[in-house]
Amino acid sequence: MTPLIITDGRRRYLFRGKDIHTDRGVISAVDILSSSDGKVKTHLGYEFSVREARSEDYFHHFTRTRTPLMPKDVGAIIAYTGLKSSDVVLDAGTGTGILSAFLATIASKVITCESNPHSARVALRNFRTFGIDNVEVIIGDIRRLHFRMKFDVITLDLPEAHEVIPHVSEYLKDGGYLVVYSPYIDRSAEAMRALQNFTSVRGIELIEREINISKRGIRPNTRVAHTGYLVIARK
Amino acid sequence: MTPLIITDGRRRYLFRGKDIHTDRGVISAVDILSSSDGKVKTHLGYEFSVREARSEDYFHHFTRTRTPLMPKDVGAIIAYTGLKSSDVVLDAGTGTGILSAFLATIASKVITCESNPHSARVALRNFRTFGIDNVEVIIGDIRRLHFRMKFDVITLDLPEAHEVIPHVSEYLKDGGYLVVYSPYIDRSAEAMRALQNFTSVRGIELIEREINISKRGIRPNTRVAHTGYLVIARK
Amino acid sequence: MTPLIITDGRRRYLFRGKDIHTDRGVISAVDILSSSDGKVKTHLGYEFSVREARSEDYFHHFTRTRTPLMPKDVGAIIAYTGLKSSDVVLDAGTGTGILSAFLATIASKVITCESNPHSARVALRNFRTFGIDNVEVIIGDIRRLHFRMKFDVITLDLPEAHEVIPHVSEYLKDGGYLVVYSPYIDRSAEAMRALQNFTSVRGIELIEREINISKRGIRPNTRVAHTGYLVIARK
Amino acid sequence: MTPLIITDGRRRYLFRGKDIHTDRGVISAVDILSSSDGKVKTHLGYEFSVREARSEDYFHHFTRTRTPLMPKDVGAIIAYTGLKSSDVVLDAGTGTGILSAFLATIASKVITCESNPHSARVALRNFRTFGIDNVEVIIGDIRRLHFRMKFDVITLDLPEAHEVIPHVSEYLKDGGYLVVYSPYIDRSAEAMRALQNFTSVRGIELIEREINISKRGIRPNTRVAHTGYLVIARK
Repeated sequence: MTPLIITDGRRRYLFRGKDIHTDRGVISAVDILSSSDGKVKTHLGYEFSVREARSEDYFHHFTRTRTPLMPKDVGAIIAYTGLKSSDVVLDAGTGTGILSAFLATIASKVITCESNPHSARVALRNFRTFGIDNVEVIIGDIRRLHFRMKFDVITLDLPEAHEVIPHVSEYLKDGGYLVVYSPYIDRSAEAMRALQNFTSVRGIELIEREINISKRGIRPNTRVAHTGYLVIARK
Repeated sequence: MTPLIITDGRRRYLFRGKDIHTDRGVISAVDILSSSDGKVKTHLGYEFSVREARSEDYFHHFTRTRTPLMPKDVGAIIAYTGLKSSDVVLDAGTGTGILSAFLATIASKVITCESNPHSARVALRNFRTFGIDNVEVIIGDIRRLHFRMKFDVITLDLPEAHEVIPHVSEYLKDGGYLVVYSPYIDRSAEAMRALQNFTSVRGIELIEREINISKRGIRPNTRVAHTGYLVIARK
Repeated sequence: MTPLIITDGRRRYLFRGKDIHTDRGVISAVDILSSSDGKVKTHLGYEFSVREARSEDYFHHFTRTRTPLMPKDVGAIIAYTGLKSSDVVLDAGTGTGILSAFLATIASKVITCESNPHSARVALRNFRTFGIDNVEVIIGDIRRLHFRMKFDVITLDLPEAHEVIPHVSEYLKDGGYLVVYSPYIDRSAEAMRALQNFTSVRGIELIEREINISKRGIRPNTRVAHTGYLVIARK
Repeated sequence: MTPLIITDGRRRYLFRGKDIHTDRGVISAVDILSSSDGKVKTHLGYEFSVREARSEDYFHHFTRTRTPLMPKDVGAIIAYTGLKSSDVVLDAGTGTGILSAFLATIASKVITCESNPHSARVALRNFRTFGIDNVEVIIGDIRRLHFRMKFDVITLDLPEAHEVIPHVSEYLKDGGYLVVYSPYIDRSAEAMRALQNFTSVRGIELIEREINISKRGIRPNTRVAHTGYLVIARK
């Protein structure tokens, strides 16, 4: 079953089968399950919407073990690799699992590996909560793993990505994409150098600015978050 | 049949069933069609790879009628809407067709409308060239079109987007996403205001900087392109 | 007398003639005044430096009544107007007084006006604390003020700048510069339109990113502050 | 004598004592020298303004030997060092001479050194053209130069800045500022590391975006130029 999101726009709750306690009153689990028009009310009378979760909700509701990728970076990975439904993806450095989960809503299968058992368990729980059943989690160091298949897309979110590249490149199909995500520009440059025998290599950074509108005028949000750099190479 | 891309990394050609003339010699159509290892040589002996096209190739090979959306913006639309395989999308302002085509590789169906017949024809040809068969093109003004269905995602790339919003909102499912793309910040602010009864509205700009590495050091590319703003609202 | 700054790099204190209480112990006023090598010690033995204040210190030690301009914007005003020692400047919207104070370290005289008496008093105190004696503060609305002189540079940091432009332009020398600072892009565009009969008009935004270095790598600071837009026009 | 700039807003000419040939006709030198109201006409009747040059004009009229610093970076150097009229500055890597010239309009004296004799000569000519007489040019390698004085501000625009830092630091007053300009982020990080025993070190990048307004709306210029990074350290 697709999990449900209960929201009034500002507040967002993931329905976990129990009553939801909000600062605007309690929403009964029975009301949620029996809502036919997608609306429920708290016991204080405030209206909320009931919606099926979409992959965008992962960014809000996944339990985090470290800073996850932001939508802009996940989106760029999808667009620059042209990810499609028949793709099989290898994602090294599962972390919170957002990238794997998101790619899995498009690709046919994602195999992800994470050396930290705690992170792997949290990611697995995140996948289960959202009914994501085409991600396989391997606990272990990517450098010691061997595969009997090749992948369409490989993503690396690891501090030592540039050292891992020669090993994982073997498992990338010709014409497939290898993507490295790193918060550090010098690490990204090392990855670009390690990818120089690929047919194309591109390093980018996406800066996201939020627009604020008020009666006084239009301005960017005062804070712009740096997240990281993406290196995208095609074999 | 999936179209083929012939490339040596720097040069990229879309195979159109005929010999390809490159500045490194001619590649024979027969060689391309009979290549079993994904490699072909020009008559001068230079090696090229033969690959199935992916949606990323649309950005390089679509015939353009106006400035198309960039991968960063297409990716952000996918990520912020959580686009998925069962989605049906309405895309108003087809233009070159890249957004429709890209969304169609993920969604089940895209209906796109374009008021300029020439643009519509070029977009149709682009879709046909790449074997994209789940995009339906309607030639006409979105404000005069009526649908008997509702959409999961509606995208607007039109100068008058904020005027179109009340009309198209009727055809958006509850919980669905409406996205407006505009090169202009004041137009984007108008769209944000027109969307204020949606449950969430976010205006963003993505600035993409390319990283250059050389022996002398690491630096961003001297030129950063502004493309446009995205307004993403959930009903 | 030039005011003194007492600092150990991280901590910065403006010497106000009294003992300074730091979290590393007390620094005696007598020790500060009698230091011959530019060094003093707290009663706990931690060393601090004694230095003459420079205009950069205004950004750290001015009492604030609202968000002051940042060094990047003050610097750009100086560079884009080519401010020089013989210039006389009119600065409308004194605020905290940082812009007036900074321009006054270069120009021969700055006349600044502020409609809020409290802000004006705080600014005056800031100027006095730092021994700045070539800034004259007028309490009042710029639109009602008349001058018997013309200025080399006029700066406006006011919400209604575009309405003030026709009035103040009379007091700008031919070849002089009018600068408008605003946090809002639509207000800045209005100012640009109001300046269209000037010989040159330029609207810019400066985004400042701080670089962080650590053992793990080089990255921009995660937060980038938007401050505002500058419109620079030459009569 | 202050040099004169002849301009109609779009076109800018530095008056070199001779008639000026524009695409709108010829402006006579005699007319320029005898203009009493700051206006001249071409022989075709188009009006131009006659103005005294300001330091901002250096950016337009200096003969270039390599990419000079931009106003935003020159301005930030002035603001972050709090440059003042009594300062003596050492500027290593004269290049086109813009930074030296600009700092010299504010500081009392600038000593600049340049290892390339051709660049040094062009810079000298630029200074002479604009009547800048408080910049002293030394042709030679900064690493071999010794001074019997100390400087308030030292600026380095050299590929090997981080190697030069230990040498030049000796000639910086306590409380003085050392600034490194580099187009490369890894070089800038090396400079930051070489400056770690200074009391404060800050690395920044300023991204300048120009605003365009038209009937269709407000947008940033499509091209944003990267120039370089600034490292500002206080001894």
